[in-house]
Amino acid sequence: MLEQHPTSEQTALPRRASLFGAPLQVVSVGLGSFTEPFGRYAVPTRQVDWQPPFGGDPKIARLLAELADDQPGTLGGRVAAANAIAVTRILSAHPMLVGVGTARTSLTLASGVGAGAPLPERAILHAGPPIDWARMCGPMKGAVLGAILLEGWATDLAEAARLAASREIHFAPCHHYRAVGPMAGVISPSMPVWVVRNESAANLAFATFNEGLGKVLRYGANGAEVLTRLRWIAETLAPSMGAMLDRHGPIDLGALTAQALHMGDECHNRNVAATSLFARAIAPTLVRTVPTRVAGDVLDFLLDNNHFYLNLSMAACKATLDAARDVPYSTVVVALARNGVEFGIQTSGTGDEWFTAPSTVPDALFFPGYGPTDANPDLGDSAITETCGLGGFAMAAAPAIVRFVGGTTRDALRYSREMATITLARNPSYALPPLDFAGTPTGIDMRRVVETRVAPVINTGVAHREPGVGQIGAGITRAPLECFVAALRALGDRVGGTQ
Amino acid sequence: MLEQHPTSEQTALPRRASLFGAPLQVVSVGLGSFTEPFGRYAVPTRQVDWQPPFGGDPKIARLLAELADDQPGTLGGRVAAANAIAVTRILSAHPMLVGVGTARTSLTLASGVGAGAPLPERAILHAGPPIDWARMCGPMKGAVLGAILLEGWATDLAEAARLAASREIHFAPCHHYRAVGPMAGVISPSMPVWVVRNESAANLAFATFNEGLGKVLRYGANGAEVLTRLRWIAETLAPSMGAMLDRHGPIDLGALTAQALHMGDECHNRNVAATSLFARAIAPTLVRTVPTRVAGDVLDFLLDNNHFYLNLSMAACKATLDAARDVPYSTVVVALARNGVEFGIQTSGTGDEWFTAPSTVPDALFFPGYGPTDANPDLGDSAITETCGLGGFAMAAAPAIVRFVGGTTRDALRYSREMATITLARNPSYALPPLDFAGTPTGIDMRRVVETRVAPVINTGVAHREPGVGQIGAGITRAPLECFVAALRALGDRVGGTQ
Repeated sequence: MLEQHPTSEQTALPRRASLFGAPLQVVSVGLGSFTEPFGRYAVPTRQVDWQPPFGGDPKIARLLAELADDQPGTLGGRVAAANAIAVTRILSAHPMLVGVGTARTSLTLASGVGAGAPLPERAILHAGPPIDWARMCGPMKGAVLGAILLEGWATDLAEAARLAASREIHFAPCHHYRAVGPMAGVISPSMPVWVVRNESAANLAFATFNEGLGKVLRYGANGAEVLTRLRWIAETLAPSMGAMLDRHGPIDLGALTAQALHMGDECHNRNVAATSLFARAIAPTLVRTVPTRVAGDVLDFLLDNNHFYLNLSMAACKATLDAARDVPYSTVVVALARNGVEFGIQTSGTGDEWFTAPSTVPDALFFPGYGPTDANPDLGDSAITETCGLGGFAMAAAPAIVRFVGGTTRDALRYSREMATITLARNPSYALPPLDFAGTPTGIDMRRVVETRVAPVINTGVAHREPGVGQIGAGITRAPLECFVAALRALGDRVGGTQ
Repeated sequence: MLEQHPTSEQTALPRRASLFGAPLQVVSVGLGSFTEPFGRYAVPTRQVDWQPPFGGDPKIARLLAELADDQPGTLGGRVAAANAIAVTRILSAHPMLVGVGTARTSLTLASGVGAGAPLPERAILHAGPPIDWARMCGPMKGAVLGAILLEGWATDLAEAARLAASREIHFAPCHHYRAVGPMAGVISPSMPVWVVRNESAANLAFATFNEGLGKVLRYGANGAEVLTRLRWIAETLAPSMGAMLDRHGPIDLGALTAQALHMGDECHNRNVAATSLFARAIAPTLVRTVPTRVAGDVLDFLLDNNHFYLNLSMAACKATLDAARDVPYSTVVVALARNGVEFGIQTSGTGDEWFTAPSTVPDALFFPGYGPTDANPDLGDSAITETCGLGGFAMAAAPAIVRFVGGTTRDALRYSREMATITLARNPSYALPPLDFAGTPTGIDMRRVVETRVAPVINTGVAHREPGVGQIGAGITRAPLECFVAALRALGDRVGGTQ
């Protein structure tokens, strides 16, 4: 069929191949190597990405079909009913900042074996799914060592490293203690935490205080200035905020987040509006509650840190999503989290099980002097914001963020629209003005992620892979599809799908 | 030509008229009454708005043609060169908040006869172009009476009204004293004013302190609570801010406005971001400068008033535009202002002359219980923000404002794009994220307004026409085209156009 026009050795450009007289063009679906022979004949080729659906696993295809049938009485019907419950719990959440405590006294194991148990004395919590010391990434190791020094369990880094490698430290994900932490996400017992209560389900969630930028523990720095700041946070900032809250009463984080979405924040990587609203809201009570010198220092700290609200946003999202946990049959995702080595997800119908895949390096705008080879793979619990419809899902609200994470303002709108294809609802409380006040896409359905191969988009900071260098960029990443396929398979096993 | 199909008295619907067999359709350009006869024959008619260009004045058409020719040496060439100077002065302005003073000591007559003269002892300044007591609108009269009571020139409203009607009060526009005030815009000698310095041209501008919402002087209320608040502003708020600024140093209002445009403000009718940023910026210094009780009250006042920044935005715009005044031949507009009866404009090439037309009622979203018949015609100096490329010109930055002023988020983008057709530049310092960071349209060219009949769009609050009722809505209005035609004619007379 292929009429070959032989090319002479002298012509650099071969003549175009043709088919029955018409110029030949080749579209190759799937394997790219199919197009290679055509290059010799200067045939224009176009490669179309394609992979067999569901990793070529027919069981997943059957399971999806079964779960998609939402007639009452069927398995799909039970999934639909369960998802309605889970989504309603997310949409009706009412996260309030109620106080400040220490991790030691505030955090108790939320579920599973040992529920209600306090944090063990030598516990160090970290971001993402479970990981042991040996496998931790650089920034997380640096943060763990810093926490050991902060707690006084060792007096220098070498001793701290020996302790970390011993079996004396209880490592566990923050998520196992109803807590979340950005980047390394390290929480040790003496650290102060924000206490957020979801008024509609009476569950609590916790997050650390944001340290600001520069040399900070969450990026693995553990020098004297880092520990000094952490001690100031524990001894001055946190008690001031606690006393302020006692006098002020609870602060409605849902309302603050909603307002910030009208002010260009997406409440993951851009928090300047929420931080400013929060500072303005608490300032009058703060100055009446603590000594002037302390109030000045606290307000300076708030002024210097446009990400101060991030940890409050994360705790509010955690409190919101935990209410949707453990609804049997539900395919709603309740956590996206990264430990810098693995990306993990948890879903409502699969309890506390993690479904993991290797963490990847985000597509980022790097700060001058840094590039992808410096970057640590995706890290931190902050993707709890995307799980809750904020961050990458709410990018339409935050066109200015493209200067920080890359892309155009049109991309920002596109991401929010795209995420609507894998979510079950729009959150009317979190309206996106540039999309004519449509609610942010909420309630990630792992079925839709697997079916559409549209992975949740995440706005994220990028850590240097060496501990303590800090943030080297910000960008966009996607949750790995394998996590969702694995979770769906596990749900199928639980509920007797494709039996 | 018109084949009439006679209709019987019995048929309700007359048969369609036709022309050479084809059904007749009528398009009427201009006068609507031309289409009336066709109604009897059920001929579909369409009315197209049209008016003779330039009010039917051929001299304006010739003048526009002359001014449009921008060859060096021609009149148009001189206009182009003058506009380049005026626009450069606007774009290079650097408005800094440098202090707080009283109107009595701070305001001096800026230009014209008596330049450098202090504010007369019994002066009351008002928004918009000049107007005498008898012609003032209700809210402005109410505010004037309140100011007379505040100054202690009368002890009750009846006495104040007699005084206002006498020749003892010196009424003048705020603009004549380098000042601006929202709505009634009333400034009396004892009132505190913000002092803004444009660092690039060393000129000063002034504005009152924003009183918040509810019963306030600027909407014509003058009861005890209004005067009490004004006294608190003069005795507590203003000195606190002055002392804070002395300690803190100047605050860059251009940078604050630029940041607020990335946070959903347009800095006329939406100032929540700028107010929050300002509050957060000054809080640390404030608490170190004034007693705790005072700091708490001041921070409470800032917390309760999302429009606090409006007056700062106005003073910054005034400082910016005054630098572009008095460039001979320039057609750049340097003030849009309304006194509630007349809309007035000033342009760079026509000195201190006002060009006025009747003020109209904005197309508004009214608060429950109110409608257009309750509304006062357009009022206030706040359109100085639009003159500077903010407000209606920057609506693309503030999609959430459509919930307040009406329309859709698409309209918000459209207004900013439309205003680019009547402006000479885009201000790179004031970027609009939803338009891919294009600068806000800046430097209104009265030639383009007259040519295109595209009138500057203004986001505005709407006052009740009775004094003291307060704000009853917010909406969109347009500057009357007649002002621009009159200004263009005056410029032509000055520069010898069409001689």
